[in-house]
Amino acid sequence: MNASIEDQLNPVKCVGMEKVVGASDLTIDHMLQARQRIAPYVHNTPILTSTYLNERIGAELFFKCENFQKAGAFKVRGACNAVFGLTDEDAALGVATHSSGNHALSLSYAAGRRGIPCHVVMPKTAPQAKKDAVRGYGGLITECEPSTTSREAVFAEIQSQTGAEFVHPYNDPRVIAGQATCSAEMLEAIDGLDSIVAPIGGGGMISGTCLTVSHLAPKIEIFAAEPMQADDAARSFRAGHIIADDAPVTIADGLKVPLKDNTWHFVSHYVADVLTASEEEIIEAMKLTWQRLKIVMEPSCAVPLAVILKNQDVFRGRRIGVIVTGGNVDLDRLPWMK
Amino acid sequence: MNASIEDQLNPVKCVGMEKVVGASDLTIDHMLQARQRIAPYVHNTPILTSTYLNERIGAELFFKCENFQKAGAFKVRGACNAVFGLTDEDAALGVATHSSGNHALSLSYAAGRRGIPCHVVMPKTAPQAKKDAVRGYGGLITECEPSTTSREAVFAEIQSQTGAEFVHPYNDPRVIAGQATCSAEMLEAIDGLDSIVAPIGGGGMISGTCLTVSHLAPKIEIFAAEPMQADDAARSFRAGHIIADDAPVTIADGLKVPLKDNTWHFVSHYVADVLTASEEEIIEAMKLTWQRLKIVMEPSCAVPLAVILKNQDVFRGRRIGVIVTGGNVDLDRLPWMK
Repeated sequence: MNASIEDQLNPVKCVGMEKVVGASDLTIDHMLQARQRIAPYVHNTPILTSTYLNERIGAELFFKCENFQKAGAFKVRGACNAVFGLTDEDAALGVATHSSGNHALSLSYAAGRRGIPCHVVMPKTAPQAKKDAVRGYGGLITECEPSTTSREAVFAEIQSQTGAEFVHPYNDPRVIAGQATCSAEMLEAIDGLDSIVAPIGGGGMISGTCLTVSHLAPKIEIFAAEPMQADDAARSFRAGHIIADDAPVTIADGLKVPLKDNTWHFVSHYVADVLTASEEEIIEAMKLTWQRLKIVMEPSCAVPLAVILKNQDVFRGRRIGVIVTGGNVDLDRLPWMK
Repeated sequence: MNASIEDQLNPVKCVGMEKVVGASDLTIDHMLQARQRIAPYVHNTPILTSTYLNERIGAELFFKCENFQKAGAFKVRGACNAVFGLTDEDAALGVATHSSGNHALSLSYAAGRRGIPCHVVMPKTAPQAKKDAVRGYGGLITECEPSTTSREAVFAEIQSQTGAEFVHPYNDPRVIAGQATCSAEMLEAIDGLDSIVAPIGGGGMISGTCLTVSHLAPKIEIFAAEPMQADDAARSFRAGHIIADDAPVTIADGLKVPLKDNTWHFVSHYVADVLTASEEEIIEAMKLTWQRLKIVMEPSCAVPLAVILKNQDVFRGRRIGVIVTGGNVDLDRLPWMK
C-alpha cells in the first residue's frame, strides 16, 4: 500500500462532521468519518481476479465484490452512514425512503441494526420477492400506485405522520460519503491502480469513488459504465448539464435512475469518461463473470466489464479496479435464459 | 489459530516422500509436502459466512470456497501434487487420465503449468463445453465410445503409445495428499471447528480431510454428504465394505463414482457418518447458497448444506466447516429452471 494513502486513511485524522448541505461541501474527512461509523455493520469485501480475463483483455482486473456485502450490495455503506449519523432524537423517529431496490433493503438493514423503524414506499406492482426481502430485513412497506404522483403523495403522508428522516438512494451527501468507503478499501488493498470502473445510475457509487480518489490518488482515472439503453449520464456528460431519460428500458435495472445535483457535481468534475454498452454486451459480460469468477451478481455489475471488453485500447496494460456493485438477482429469470 | 496446529503445519517438519503404495502409508508429512509443492499453483481459497444461514440453522457455518480455486475446483490440489511430484524423466512422458469432469480440467491445468502433455480419454458423447474447457487448459483429448470397455481399451493404447503416468481422479495417494491441503487451510483460518462436512463421490476430498484432521484435530467430526440417489458410500459405510452402484442418476454429477480401496480406507476408519439428501433438497440448498452467499457452485457442493438443513439436531450449536468443492456448472441448465 502506498504510504501516503495509508497516512491519509489514518482514522485519527477524522474530525467532527459539519452540517453538509451539498456535494461540494464534502471532504475526505466525511469519508473517513463514514468509515469509522459504518465499520461494525459492513464487510470489507474481498477482491477477486481472473487469469483468464486478464489474459483476454491484456490488463490486470481487480473485482471489488460488493455482491458479498451485507444486504447484498454497496448501498448498505451509504445507508449505514446516514442511519448511524443521526442524533438519538432524530433516529427515534425512524428513516424513510422510496425504492424497490437495493437501497430499500440496505436502509431496512441499517435501521434494524440501530433498532429504529424504516418506512419504505413501494409501488403495489413491485415483485413479491422484493417486498419479502425488504420485510425480511424489518422494513415497513407502504404501497402506492405505480406513478410518481402517487408515490410522492404517499411518501409525504408517511413522513408527516412519522417525522421519519428521508434518506435518498443517492442524492444525499451522507449516502455519497458512505459509498466513498468502498474505493478507500480498494486503494488500501491494491497498489498502483491506473483506473477504476464502476456502473452509473443515479451516480452514488461513482460520486463516492470521485470523493475518495480525487483526494487520495488523483492520478487514477475514473470511468463510469452505463447501459446504452439508459445513457442519460453519457449524454449529460457530453452536454455539460443533466439530461434525464423518461423511462429507459434495460436489464441493468439498478441503473435506470437519472443523475441529480449532488451526483452531477462529482460526475462533471472528476469522471474521465462515461462509456456505454449494449444489452447484448452486458449479458455476455455478466455470463462471462459468472463463469470465470464464479460469483452471482446483478446485470448492472456487468456493465463495467462490458465497456472494458469493448474498449480494450483504452484499458490494455492498465491495472483496473472494477466495482461489482451487488448480487441481488432473480435466479429464476437470468437474462441469458430464453 | 490453535498453537499446536500451527506447530504441526510448520513446513520445516516436511520430510522426503517415501514411495507411497496405498492409503494406509499416507502420513501428515505427505500433506505437508503436498502443501509446499502445490503452493505456487493453487489458491488458498476464501472462507465465506452467511448471517442468514447461521440464524436459520442455529450454528456457525464456514464455507471454504473451492469454487474459486484454479480450474474451478479442489481437484487441482491433487492433480498438482501428482504432476509436480514426478521426476523430470517421468514428467517428460506426460500424464493421462479418463474423466470428463473437474479432474480432467485440473490435470490439464497442472500439466500445462509444468509444460508437459496431458492426455484425456473422454467419451465422444461428452458435452462440447466440457471438451472445449479441457482443450482450453491445453489437454489433449482422445475420444472413446461411451462404454467402459471402449474407455479402457483406448486408455491402454494411449498409455502404451506415450508412456504417460496415469493419475486416477481419486484412488491415488498423491491425489489424496493434495486434497488434504484444503482442510489444513481451514484449520489455520478457523478456530474451534466441531465438524467438517464435505460431499462424497469417489471419496478423494473426504479422504484428504480425514488424513489432515485425524492427525491435527482428531476431535473434529467428519461428515460425508451424499445424494440419496447415489448413496453407495452411505450403504458401504453401514455394510462395512464397498458397495458400488451401477449407474446412479443425480444432478450432483460429480458424485456418481464409487469408492475405491484407497478412499475406503479413510471412509471406514475416520468418517463419523454419511448423510444423504434427496434431489429436491439438493436443489433447494443449491439455490439458497446462490441467493445468500452469492456464489456460483456445482450441484454437488450443495449436498453438505442440504444434509445440515435436514439434520439440524445433529449440527445445532456447532462450528461447521463446509467444503464448497467446485464451481464448474452449466449456466444454461440450472436445476431449478424448468
